[in-house]
Amino acid sequence: DQPKIVNEFSRTKMRFEARADLAKAKIAKDLFKLMATKKTNLCIAADVTSTDEILKIAEVCGPHICLLKTHVDIIENFNISFVQALKSLAEKHNFLIMEDRKFADIGNTTALQYANGIYKIAEWANLVTVHSLPGQSIIQGIKSVAANVESRGVFLLTEMSSQGNLINDKYKEGTIKMATEGLDTDFIAGIVCQSAECFAFPGLIQLTPGVKIDEGSDNLGQRYNTPEFVVKEKGADIGVVGRGILNASSIEKAASLYRDRLWSAYCDRVGLSAN
Amino acid sequence: DQPKIVNEFSRTKMRFEARADLAKAKIAKDLFKLMATKKTNLCIAADVTSTDEILKIAEVCGPHICLLKTHVDIIENFNISFVQALKSLAEKHNFLIMEDRKFADIGNTTALQYANGIYKIAEWANLVTVHSLPGQSIIQGIKSVAANVESRGVFLLTEMSSQGNLINDKYKEGTIKMATEGLDTDFIAGIVCQSAECFAFPGLIQLTPGVKIDEGSDNLGQRYNTPEFVVKEKGADIGVVGRGILNASSIEKAASLYRDRLWSAYCDRVGLSAN
Repeated sequence: DQPKIVNEFSRTKMRFEARADLAKAKIAKDLFKLMATKKTNLCIAADVTSTDEILKIAEVCGPHICLLKTHVDIIENFNISFVQALKSLAEKHNFLIMEDRKFADIGNTTALQYANGIYKIAEWANLVTVHSLPGQSIIQGIKSVAANVESRGVFLLTEMSSQGNLINDKYKEGTIKMATEGLDTDFIAGIVCQSAECFAFPGLIQLTPGVKIDEGSDNLGQRYNTPEFVVKEKGADIGVVGRGILNASSIEKAASLYRDRLWSAYCDRVGLSAN
Repeated sequence: DQPKIVNEFSRTKMRFEARADLAKAKIAKDLFKLMATKKTNLCIAADVTSTDEILKIAEVCGPHICLLKTHVDIIENFNISFVQALKSLAEKHNFLIMEDRKFADIGNTTALQYANGIYKIAEWANLVTVHSLPGQSIIQGIKSVAANVESRGVFLLTEMSSQGNLINDKYKEGTIKMATEGLDTDFIAGIVCQSAECFAFPGLIQLTPGVKIDEGSDNLGQRYNTPEFVVKEKGADIGVVGRGILNASSIEKAASLYRDRLWSAYCDRVGLSAN
């Protein structure tokens, strides 16, 4: 029998700084470094319907987050000055913006949805979420119209947290292939998934939604897990928190708490002191 | 050996009137009847970026179509009066409106994207396209906020026309199960797919995109097939035509031509005289 080889480059045991060196996408390098420097792996899901609320969340949570996730198409009063204000807050507090659009159309259509229309997502979102379902062409479509390819990128989904979703192993394999081989790896920041087994390459970032200190599920099939569970057991590099912070009596305190627990869990995982 | 049993209810051999009787969703019944009465199974993909252009397409193509498909999020100057004008044209020319949004998020988020935001899709789109990827909760989310469940519905995708897409047999099975079993079948008008084998139930409508008299593919992986091929060989009930009409020197003549060829192909298929 051959001796068991311990993989020295086990993704979840590596520090973000070392993983930045391996990343193929410039935007992934930037985000890894931002997390390491700012000591936060918290993404806030600013899934609210007014621009004022989002800006308030960005201002209050800004110091604690690496990433602010929007759903621009649920906002009632979207306008260009909102985008400018959000970008200013991102610069002030040093976080990136991700539009969680879950693009899922053919390349030509997705390119238009990304760059055009009222939202002009390409102009303000550093990152967007993308379903690999339509195949490689969706990445090519987005990349072809990205405002600046170097400061833009996508997260691909290989798992969803909703019950009964139709993602299976073959689908996951196809997605990981898209993220690790071929001409568009310089545009893929990471993978949205629920478990460490989804991918091995340390240069990609694992983004895991559905983080909440009180576990459970809502009435539309969304499941929740604790910060420690997603980071230490499930391989999350970034934990996405929505209602856990937004529904708290103090958003600021909740953001600080989630940041501490997510970061401590990461430090534990890679063998770092949390301070 | 047993004699070969001919399935009397083979979906592609049945007329739209008979299939309307079997449909579980009111919106599917309505669309089957509209096609049979108006003698058209043409859907125009009004995938352009200005409201004026869409309204012009709706006015000119209106008499020839059963369905007008929009991508509201690529329009540069969306506004409420556009929606009112489009709805008036739909009434005047007797066609339904489908927003090709390809919803693909968890139920809670999709509900907000469907009913809220700037577009308020639920208020004006009779139909929307939905990816089954997130599981049953996405249908439940949309249904929970539908303006009027009876006059609203969804098309689920079981195939995409883009090269290298990740839809596989298990995914298709899961989608068809969602469309034919359970509590939400009254909200599912049909299936977006490329072949007759995708589903058997005659009460669902097969919508097939990528129809073009000149076959081929674009440079972002989108394939095209002729009207006769998609209807007679591939089981399409409705053929979706975009660039084939929009890029023609006369949009009106092209719409009329596609309507005739799609309808004749349907008549041939079910053994009807085209007139």
